[in-house]
Amino acid sequence: MDKLLRVDMSTGKVSFSEVPPEYQGLGGRGLTSTIISREVDPRAHPLSEDNKLVITTGLLSGTPASCSGRLSIGAKSPLTGGIKESSPGGVAALKLARLGIAAIIVEGIPPGNGLYTLEVDTKGARLSPADKLKGLGKNDTVAALTGQHGDKVGYISIGQAGEMKLPASSIATTDMDNIPCRQAGRGGMGAVMGSKHLKAIILDDSGTGPVPLGNNQEFIRYNRMWAESVMADPATGQGMPIFGSPVAVTIMNKEGALPTRNFRFGQFEGADDISGKKMRQNIKEQGGRMTMPCSPGCVVRCHRTYHGKDGKLIGKAPEYETIWAFGPNLEINNLDAIVELGNLCNDYGVDTVDTGVAIAMAMEAGIIEFGDAQGTLELVREIGRQSYLGRILGSGAAVTARVLGVGRVPVVKGQAMVAYDPRVIKGMGVTEAMSTMGADHGAGYMVGVNLNWLPKWRYVPKLQVEDQVKVSREIQTFQTAMDSTGLCQFTHTPLLNSRRAFAGVIGMLNTKFGWQWRRKDFMARGKQILKAEHEFNLKAGLGPATDRLPLFFYREPVPPLNTTFDIPDSEMAKFYNF
Amino acid sequence: MDKLLRVDMSTGKVSFSEVPPEYQGLGGRGLTSTIISREVDPRAHPLSEDNKLVITTGLLSGTPASCSGRLSIGAKSPLTGGIKESSPGGVAALKLARLGIAAIIVEGIPPGNGLYTLEVDTKGARLSPADKLKGLGKNDTVAALTGQHGDKVGYISIGQAGEMKLPASSIATTDMDNIPCRQAGRGGMGAVMGSKHLKAIILDDSGTGPVPLGNNQEFIRYNRMWAESVMADPATGQGMPIFGSPVAVTIMNKEGALPTRNFRFGQFEGADDISGKKMRQNIKEQGGRMTMPCSPGCVVRCHRTYHGKDGKLIGKAPEYETIWAFGPNLEINNLDAIVELGNLCNDYGVDTVDTGVAIAMAMEAGIIEFGDAQGTLELVREIGRQSYLGRILGSGAAVTARVLGVGRVPVVKGQAMVAYDPRVIKGMGVTEAMSTMGADHGAGYMVGVNLNWLPKWRYVPKLQVEDQVKVSREIQTFQTAMDSTGLCQFTHTPLLNSRRAFAGVIGMLNTKFGWQWRRKDFMARGKQILKAEHEFNLKAGLGPATDRLPLFFYREPVPPLNTTFDIPDSEMAKFYNF
Repeated sequence: MDKLLRVDMSTGKVSFSEVPPEYQGLGGRGLTSTIISREVDPRAHPLSEDNKLVITTGLLSGTPASCSGRLSIGAKSPLTGGIKESSPGGVAALKLARLGIAAIIVEGIPPGNGLYTLEVDTKGARLSPADKLKGLGKNDTVAALTGQHGDKVGYISIGQAGEMKLPASSIATTDMDNIPCRQAGRGGMGAVMGSKHLKAIILDDSGTGPVPLGNNQEFIRYNRMWAESVMADPATGQGMPIFGSPVAVTIMNKEGALPTRNFRFGQFEGADDISGKKMRQNIKEQGGRMTMPCSPGCVVRCHRTYHGKDGKLIGKAPEYETIWAFGPNLEINNLDAIVELGNLCNDYGVDTVDTGVAIAMAMEAGIIEFGDAQGTLELVREIGRQSYLGRILGSGAAVTARVLGVGRVPVVKGQAMVAYDPRVIKGMGVTEAMSTMGADHGAGYMVGVNLNWLPKWRYVPKLQVEDQVKVSREIQTFQTAMDSTGLCQFTHTPLLNSRRAFAGVIGMLNTKFGWQWRRKDFMARGKQILKAEHEFNLKAGLGPATDRLPLFFYREPVPPLNTTFDIPDSEMAKFYNF
Repeated sequence: MDKLLRVDMSTGKVSFSEVPPEYQGLGGRGLTSTIISREVDPRAHPLSEDNKLVITTGLLSGTPASCSGRLSIGAKSPLTGGIKESSPGGVAALKLARLGIAAIIVEGIPPGNGLYTLEVDTKGARLSPADKLKGLGKNDTVAALTGQHGDKVGYISIGQAGEMKLPASSIATTDMDNIPCRQAGRGGMGAVMGSKHLKAIILDDSGTGPVPLGNNQEFIRYNRMWAESVMADPATGQGMPIFGSPVAVTIMNKEGALPTRNFRFGQFEGADDISGKKMRQNIKEQGGRMTMPCSPGCVVRCHRTYHGKDGKLIGKAPEYETIWAFGPNLEINNLDAIVELGNLCNDYGVDTVDTGVAIAMAMEAGIIEFGDAQGTLELVREIGRQSYLGRILGSGAAVTARVLGVGRVPVVKGQAMVAYDPRVIKGMGVTEAMSTMGADHGAGYMVGVNLNWLPKWRYVPKLQVEDQVKVSREIQTFQTAMDSTGLCQFTHTPLLNSRRAFAGVIGMLNTKFGWQWRRKDFMARGKQILKAEHEFNLKAGLGPATDRLPLFFYREPVPPLNTTFDIPDSEMAKFYNF
């Protein structure tokens, strides 16, 4: 039976306990959100001793299930003021699962200003002073810790931004090359970790055995069904391994849905300069590696590294949303600069999306001009310098807009919107408005539904008004359940579109836990968690009217399609009546 | 019949129109809140072209009614995200009323970066470019305009903070000495004016006749009843003329309700150094004037000027809440420094309360130490310098806490709490939590109720739980109606406590407007406006759970009484069911 690890930072006490009945059978987002809902007062200040940082493994983490490497990190969010969960890949979930730990719950705040690390291994868990790591980015933090603990362990770390407790701070996990490049980017989880004075967690699974699967042969058979389905899907079998998520740049531009210059236009002149194809070409020409897994056992292998024109490694090749945030959003078409910006954010520990949109706010305020890549690099470096300007930007788009006096602010519940114009991909508009997580494409990715990538599941044309709310609710419910498994969000396409894929996953769950789940049970679990999150948000003060897009999306048509967001409020208001 | 003046900044067009039926019989907060409710989309961004700045006169403004000089300024607030009204004294309301203008409604945003002034006189209204005023504080702004327009007109102006559109920006009116020292401080109304590129409004009432009173003799008789009652009240007849509002320092300290060191203690060692008595002594010894009206016809005369130890004028002597914000709140006992801080805020155009609490956040973050008066002066000067740090602080306490990573934040709906510990003066806790305006002592001043200053009206002992919600609702309803009249909030004590005072005021209203109002009609008006404001806030996203104090007031007892805020949520939740 897996255990809970509680870490009380106010006393320095760590303790293991059985998983209580109310948390059994839960994993990933299901477990983080349930723990937050039950143990954190919805009115707690996110940076106070009343908040908790919860880190969990997915239900399938640590098993051979392909693409099951997502860790779940949750807390009351300093960015949205509501409940938040963010799920990075990398090796952490696997190691935590092998250590037999369902959840780490970090509570309280230590006296004084000291920083700490938490080491977890087969001998137990312990906190150690880590003041020597103060002020370091994630790269230097992991490098310093690697000297002590080696490169076979997993590291979970924050950068300068998390130490400063900035609302857009991220937490990184290390990938299979021991690089802290997989991010729990959204919602400011890094600030909660920083508020606990916890700089890094070291997960050493040496000496552990395999995670029990129930029936090994059965499990392996279901996993084969799943992995084959993932490989057979055009997105996860071809687009992602070849181009990674940047495959979306060209698609969105063609659809007129690539938000450009702070959501003024739906197409970007420089789209070809920053496309997935161009990135693939640059990686080939400039050095770098492609088609790698970020966590063991992943068959999608969308992880890539990127080198500059001088052949020197810049870092991880960015995801589509990061390319968007620093590219079309700012009218920047310099891919090398975009890659560097993404990696600076990763190192300092801030979300690339909220930081990119914060830079857009600085451009709106006239601090620098749209299109200024060098100026953008200078501004982002301010975060690492821990200057007041850096603190403003690292606080995310909503706060930056307030401090710089900007009135055109694409945020929902204080979190920046992202990469898909909601006036064109209207289903994404519904997801970003209604999600319990604030604006978040990952909460229910309606792009496939709106562009007919899921013909065997649902198709709602992108500009249609009807059914967007209903289907966004369905996919959000599904995604919430999926986020409990540890499966990578990128695999939602086969999981929705292929009966065989779903049969494989539900088969693995049933085999491991001795359940007799069917699709309706999976959906019921998603609904239960989504409702608990929504209830938490209402109690935290996020009233129903916060479930809406900014007014300008309703009023200002976006070229070239010249459409507005026109899903009626009466439709939107029904979302949580289910 | 009074007129509406609409100013469309996007086209530069100004137009006068009749007051439409739906706005007739309304004044002050009743009129600003009704116009905002009907004309501004609750989801509008406060700094966007969809917001409006509304400036109105009270129902009794411009008449001989004593203490009727309050102007009302309203908009959707960039600080709270809800509806907001703030009412400064000075000469503006009188002049606007004599010009026959019930409301100025400023709409839209001009193209380009230019600043403008709006002149209003008997010939009409016109916008003029005012780029030469860019970057000036309010004092220099009014000095520059006085060279052109003289000192017999009224000026409404913003400082650097309003130009920067900072969420805690204020708007000033000029007093009878042509000093821009009467502030619409709370809720960031200056940022809305700044977003409209409007630097100042010049009200020239030369050539106007008296405001019609219905029946002059009758009106004068009722006004005598009113003025005599105000003079007979211990607070407005003695405490205020002699000490001004700082009379409260000693009282609150004695009660254990003077929030000290960011609400950690209820008493301040240095209270005697900053008391009303000490201020009176300093004014006498160092120069300065006392017992002056801030607007014509006021019999309370609580306005005072303050000179430093060198005999040089520092400026307006601060109100109690300003003394608190820069005094006990920061553990500063240097009265000269506090006066200077208040006047710097007035000049730059930021709310003293939200700025003082923002400084407390900077102290919590370790930027400077508690008690550091010189450091505080340096920080506040950053606002005038328009530095990034200045922008952070001028954004108010809530935003400052987010950018500096502070988790102990005394705000409600994003607005700083003020000067009365809610764990001791529990009725004020209810008012600050429930008010449509965010934390705001003026929304329903429960201090008198809790300390038995209103024996003929209501007495609910300060630590009692029962009846605080009921009576706070009653006083907020009453105050909302009173805020429609133009009467100064300081006179709520006689108006509540003396039947003769109320008879005088209702008599003046009935005489002027030909009404047959009784107390129930007055209360019904208050309720109608409060409900409209509450409805707006719900639609703006401020859910019921935002009607609560920060959690630490419920958990942390405040010495010396060691009480917490313990009004049950179930009681609080009933507030708007009436």
